[in-house]
Amino acid sequence: MGIVVQKYGGSSVADAEAIKRVARRIVETKKDGNQVVVVVSAMGDTTDELIDLANQVSPLPPARELDMLLTAGERISMAVLAMAIHDLGHEARSFTGSQAGVITDAEHGRAKIIDVTPGRIQAAIDEGAIAIVAGFQGVSQTTKDITTLGRGGSDTTAVALAVALAADVCEIYSDVDGIFTADPRIEPRARKVPRISYEETLEMAAQGANILHLRCVEYARRYDMPIHVRSSFSEKEGTWVVKSQDVAVPDNQGENAMEAAIITGVAHDRSQAKITVVGVPDKPGEAAAIFRAVADAQINIDMIVQNVSAAATSLTDVSFTLPRGEGQTAMAALSKLQTSVGFETLQYDDSVGKVSIVGAGMSSSPGISARFFEALSDAGVNIEMISTSEIRVSVVVSETQVEDAVRAAHAAFDLGSDEVEAVVYGGTGR
Amino acid sequence: MGIVVQKYGGSSVADAEAIKRVARRIVETKKDGNQVVVVVSAMGDTTDELIDLANQVSPLPPARELDMLLTAGERISMAVLAMAIHDLGHEARSFTGSQAGVITDAEHGRAKIIDVTPGRIQAAIDEGAIAIVAGFQGVSQTTKDITTLGRGGSDTTAVALAVALAADVCEIYSDVDGIFTADPRIEPRARKVPRISYEETLEMAAQGANILHLRCVEYARRYDMPIHVRSSFSEKEGTWVVKSQDVAVPDNQGENAMEAAIITGVAHDRSQAKITVVGVPDKPGEAAAIFRAVADAQINIDMIVQNVSAAATSLTDVSFTLPRGEGQTAMAALSKLQTSVGFETLQYDDSVGKVSIVGAGMSSSPGISARFFEALSDAGVNIEMISTSEIRVSVVVSETQVEDAVRAAHAAFDLGSDEVEAVVYGGTGR
Repeated sequence: MGIVVQKYGGSSVADAEAIKRVARRIVETKKDGNQVVVVVSAMGDTTDELIDLANQVSPLPPARELDMLLTAGERISMAVLAMAIHDLGHEARSFTGSQAGVITDAEHGRAKIIDVTPGRIQAAIDEGAIAIVAGFQGVSQTTKDITTLGRGGSDTTAVALAVALAADVCEIYSDVDGIFTADPRIEPRARKVPRISYEETLEMAAQGANILHLRCVEYARRYDMPIHVRSSFSEKEGTWVVKSQDVAVPDNQGENAMEAAIITGVAHDRSQAKITVVGVPDKPGEAAAIFRAVADAQINIDMIVQNVSAAATSLTDVSFTLPRGEGQTAMAALSKLQTSVGFETLQYDDSVGKVSIVGAGMSSSPGISARFFEALSDAGVNIEMISTSEIRVSVVVSETQVEDAVRAAHAAFDLGSDEVEAVVYGGTGR
Repeated sequence: MGIVVQKYGGSSVADAEAIKRVARRIVETKKDGNQVVVVVSAMGDTTDELIDLANQVSPLPPARELDMLLTAGERISMAVLAMAIHDLGHEARSFTGSQAGVITDAEHGRAKIIDVTPGRIQAAIDEGAIAIVAGFQGVSQTTKDITTLGRGGSDTTAVALAVALAADVCEIYSDVDGIFTADPRIEPRARKVPRISYEETLEMAAQGANILHLRCVEYARRYDMPIHVRSSFSEKEGTWVVKSQDVAVPDNQGENAMEAAIITGVAHDRSQAKITVVGVPDKPGEAAAIFRAVADAQINIDMIVQNVSAAATSLTDVSFTLPRGEGQTAMAALSKLQTSVGFETLQYDDSVGKVSIVGAGMSSSPGISARFFEALSDAGVNIEMISTSEIRVSVVVSETQVEDAVRAAHAAFDLGSDEVEAVVYGGTGR
């Protein structure tokens, strides 16, 4: 008998009917002979509604109290889910993050897990009950106050509990069948990836594929906990996220190691903007001044490109990408530098998108970048910026050309299946 | 500097605006030089909405999970109230029942407080913060599970915390100005009682006056904690509930001990029904069989009257009152006894009401009952049943005559003021 940890997101428990369906799936897993621990998010839009309520009384609510408020969301969903399981004739007990032993630091709103002491959870499943645990929350080791892990923290709760309980697998349920070679809304021939490495998943997530949170994948990688990403709306196998040595094992679709693709998938991201600092004097310290100002404004930048300076003027242009929501803050911070740095103008462009190819195979396959850029060129897509890592090549293009670029890359690396998969992608779950 | 415990009910924190108003009042109390601990109920109809949600997944949800669910209500209100206080520039920290040290037995849904260990509350107020505590909830000493104290439990939480903190006073806020000599909606000349003993308050509450829960008054009496019942919608003094020796102290309205009224107030209750078992053989054991059947059905009966048997038949009638909601259960339980006990028929009447006069002074004043019954007779009110205690006389009358009976009793004992007080009774709070 193994231990299975399952995590259900807000769209899987959006209302009473959804909760009943999830309850039936949990009971099936239990009947299959497993000990089952379930991590659950708040129902549907509960978290947003609670934030609205907070903003009605305070424009900047204290973080400790915001955590206390938001944790009411999972308290509701986990208790109702336990009731629904009980109604199916099985015992279920709900536990808060604190009761489940999720010990964190005291950074309200973005607490990090320090330790997991799941004594009560282990006792519950040993007594034959199904344990339901509130995702996203914990308790501070020092202050004993209730903390939250930040958005997407429920995935991390699930993996951390799976590790602490030495579970066989951590199943992450959403309304998507798994991880795809591209967003099926853009590329209908996108294929579900049966197995993918932690590293590739991290790159896909970082490059905009809305699959799993980085933190949860990093946690799973550190402790080698297999994650099974699957849909709560179907019985199909999803995508297994495992260590890279295990990716090439023959999977249940009959593929084998020798046929493993060089490229695993194409990710895209429309949440970025591009700022260009035009006419920067090409001398030491200027770029440093620019990026110091941006960093001091607490802005995370992604890609940076500096042109070769024109010989006649000794002036250069520096471009970088950043999250759109932080664009105006960065522009304001940079404007103050105009005199001291002596640049000419600032350009702001939020009509850009990023397209990335990700795959562990590319590190041993020369010519990947060339094939990618040629495919984009053939599709008439203009490349504005480029960045690369060991297992990724990313380009910034005009937002209007993002979809063409995704399809061109997908075709260039033979990622597609012959048939269009029946996909529920961002679909019926909410 | 004293410690003040304030309790605000659901109607006082029904929405963001109400919470802001309560926050201002709390801050005023703090500015007056007090250490302030606030106990809060769930916002408005939250508890009922959560019960609805539970019933959507399970007709009979497990009590442990129902407690987990319902305690989300106070979690929300206390966090938002703390934010509103923070927004006024004062520090406030919210605490669950468990964090506040409210230790209970394991009877989910109706847990009793075993101990209160308010170390974190004391620390918070010693550091200058305002402590906000979730009412109605605690944590089981044995199972460590979250428990609730049952409806009205927030009042009990407040008094228990006040006792544990050795507070100067426990203020219970609602949308009513205090305890009145009668329901002002029925008797506009009803007067706010400045002081009343625990015992009289218990009788008033037990007889239908919707003021304070019995448990909370019993707790306050046991530990001699003064309760100040007042409105969150006005600055007026309310009613002080104190030990009987302190009632006759001259109060702030200039009355003194020698003028203390014999009768403190008139209570009425329209929630009862009357069952009459007609034609019971007048022999030993018959009444016992009847009331054993009712008790076995977990029904609380209130008043009992047995007529003298008619000499010709040796048959008697037995009547008793009980909560209307339990009427059909009792009728079903009694029907099964018809053959064994041999009574003739059962009569059920839910058009009855109970009117009571309450006052510590009556025990030393003869003729009180007579004056009460004469007043009812003069008003044309027919008395169906009578019961008395040391400090109370109650009658059951037709529901249509309840208001006439209240007014007649109020006038007979000179309870009214000359002026109609400005009363908000069941008013703007919800």
